[in-house]
Amino acid sequence: MTYEINTADDADTLVGDLARAGRKAQRVLARMSDADKAAALKAAAASLRANAPEVLEENARDVAAGEANGLTGSMLDRLRLDDARLEAVASAIENVASLPDPVGQEIDHSTAPAGMKLVRRRIPIGLIGIIYESRPNVTADAAALCLRSGNAALLRGGSEAVHSNRAIHAAMVEGLASKGVPEAAIQLMPTQDREAVGGMLRAAGLVDMIVPRGGKSLVERVQNDARVPVLAHLDGICHTYIHSAADPEMAREIALNAKMRRTGICGAMETLLLDAKFPASADVVGALLDAGCELRGDKRAQALDSRIKPASSEDWDTEYLDAIASVAVVDDVDDAMDHIAAHSSGHTDVIVTDDEETAAIFLAEVDSAIVMHNASSQFADGGEFGLGAEIGIATGRLHARGPVALEGLTTYKWQVLGSGQARA
Amino acid sequence: MTYEINTADDADTLVGDLARAGRKAQRVLARMSDADKAAALKAAAASLRANAPEVLEENARDVAAGEANGLTGSMLDRLRLDDARLEAVASAIENVASLPDPVGQEIDHSTAPAGMKLVRRRIPIGLIGIIYESRPNVTADAAALCLRSGNAALLRGGSEAVHSNRAIHAAMVEGLASKGVPEAAIQLMPTQDREAVGGMLRAAGLVDMIVPRGGKSLVERVQNDARVPVLAHLDGICHTYIHSAADPEMAREIALNAKMRRTGICGAMETLLLDAKFPASADVVGALLDAGCELRGDKRAQALDSRIKPASSEDWDTEYLDAIASVAVVDDVDDAMDHIAAHSSGHTDVIVTDDEETAAIFLAEVDSAIVMHNASSQFADGGEFGLGAEIGIATGRLHARGPVALEGLTTYKWQVLGSGQARA
Repeated sequence: MTYEINTADDADTLVGDLARAGRKAQRVLARMSDADKAAALKAAAASLRANAPEVLEENARDVAAGEANGLTGSMLDRLRLDDARLEAVASAIENVASLPDPVGQEIDHSTAPAGMKLVRRRIPIGLIGIIYESRPNVTADAAALCLRSGNAALLRGGSEAVHSNRAIHAAMVEGLASKGVPEAAIQLMPTQDREAVGGMLRAAGLVDMIVPRGGKSLVERVQNDARVPVLAHLDGICHTYIHSAADPEMAREIALNAKMRRTGICGAMETLLLDAKFPASADVVGALLDAGCELRGDKRAQALDSRIKPASSEDWDTEYLDAIASVAVVDDVDDAMDHIAAHSSGHTDVIVTDDEETAAIFLAEVDSAIVMHNASSQFADGGEFGLGAEIGIATGRLHARGPVALEGLTTYKWQVLGSGQARA
Repeated sequence: MTYEINTADDADTLVGDLARAGRKAQRVLARMSDADKAAALKAAAASLRANAPEVLEENARDVAAGEANGLTGSMLDRLRLDDARLEAVASAIENVASLPDPVGQEIDHSTAPAGMKLVRRRIPIGLIGIIYESRPNVTADAAALCLRSGNAALLRGGSEAVHSNRAIHAAMVEGLASKGVPEAAIQLMPTQDREAVGGMLRAAGLVDMIVPRGGKSLVERVQNDARVPVLAHLDGICHTYIHSAADPEMAREIALNAKMRRTGICGAMETLLLDAKFPASADVVGALLDAGCELRGDKRAQALDSRIKPASSEDWDTEYLDAIASVAVVDDVDDAMDHIAAHSSGHTDVIVTDDEETAAIFLAEVDSAIVMHNASSQFADGGEFGLGAEIGIATGRLHARGPVALEGLTTYKWQVLGSGQARA
């Protein structure tokens, strides 16, 4: 079957058809028990293993095309599957199967003034759109998380991985169908036409939420164009503030880890704020510089080490995703919080201090999705938070913030249990 | 001060200025204690009482202009204030002051694999935009709910109430300021230019959420044009399904109450679904007809009473807000749920039955914000749910659903309490 998308209307028609099929399938998913959904995911993992030769063959086509088209080494690495990586994908599906099902959980209950019992209970959101780049594992991850939480998924992966994605999707659907999951519960966009992505973003009322997975330009396009609610973060401009009462060794270790463990993740520190009264600032910046980190500082920071370059005003709003950090010296916790309020992307901000009172002020007043005391911002991750998996990290204000896992893929309804009450 | 709005850019500039001032004020609000916010609201109520003569005088100007401009009787009634109504507005502010402060509440806590303690804690959303029609009481209600939950508010009321709104706003701000609340915490749009409403709707990243309060055309415009998340419901197409095992008397009383208590509210029943095996259907429709309700039915329903008119296909998707209802006979609970899935607006749907098993199926599978068993849909209201007040009822899928009160005006952050953890 081929799809010809010549106009935005064509895209809207296609997305409408897919969304209606997905929503219908979701009604079946919503009725499935915890055990049935878990069994279906296990069958999907088994089917992925059974179809490994086909999946790897299709992946090899993508990799060959990527090499011919001059993809960078890191893009090819993200694209490439082998036996071990495919086994990791299958295991990840089984891990999601083993997570507790959020659907049906009671959030709270109360009694209405007229006597009815009120229960708020978790239900699936509905149809989730996932728009992602050329990482074939996202096809399996996102599908598994949506299905575990009773949601249908409409997946649209990057063109470089199209054959890999189709093979993984076909294998999963085969396994899921063997356990009674309708085929349309997990759909892969049947065309790579970019206009179809626009159709997903416009599909308010048909697609309930969109999760973009990928780099900043993808997230930016989705956030700018979507008429559907988006769960995402654009930037991870994370701050580490070393308070005057920080333990010097802990401060050094946390700053080093927050920046240098992996420089390319959204939880990496981008700005180091040093309290003017912290006595060991030179040690902390020295350790970062010695580890190969470029530092760009304000005047007071530059006075700490001659290797620190001058920061421009843009540096305070820059996510380097590299072995570079900006450094400022601040007067006190209020000064640090003012800097963070002005420049943080609301992802993760950290205070290092042995003074509990100052920590409490920072934790209460810094308005980011994640605020940490005496820990590295690199812990900003669903797995590290014990959530078992994550669909992404969100920095918006509504619905779900920080690492979002199964609970964030649910909403709730009010169940009202009466005994014949009519309103006076 | 006058504002000239000639272009969308002018509106964006104005809204940007107001929003930045509101967000700055919100940082102060976020630091205020429960007791301080409650005291500020009580001072606002006292100031409203002290300024009653001015408020009533300004209101009289609006009413006179409304009469001259030919406003309908019900619009004039909603616009008009007197001593008793103003006292009710002041009391409502005090009632909000007495509600528990959601800010700072712990949602849950856990321990991360690396040993940090994780706490999810409620925080204000930020700056809430309220767009409403010519009911001066909304100025006070919405401002009080936003302030109680630590949010700044940008209010834009209907032009017919502009002098009343300005007087109420000025009186409240005077009281709030006496308790240290910054003036910009509660702002009233300084111009009635409609383009400024467009500026609010476009202000993504500056206004965090918009709540429209008013009729369908207002909500529709806001939902269609907003780039900011909207908390609202468009329609209240509420169903009452009388199952075969319903108590006949209860069925009659609930149907009558759900439709006829007040026909113009969003929780009023618009469609009655009668199980083909329910023996007393003729009594239920007879009671509605005798009470003056027009019924429009499908063929099987029409056979129950000759006074029932034929329903057109549009009737199943119509919110009458009047003494009119559509009636269909359905085969069983699945048939009823299929009808509801096709036609419900996701607001409130009811089953009447003495069969607990069927009730459980209905409560689990009907996907509306509120599902009720043996109670009238007219209970769909924050006050009736014991929430103390409501900013509105939401039928969207994300963030908050059903009656939304203070909790729905908060979001959360993750607080991570470590002891020096660096990520491996």
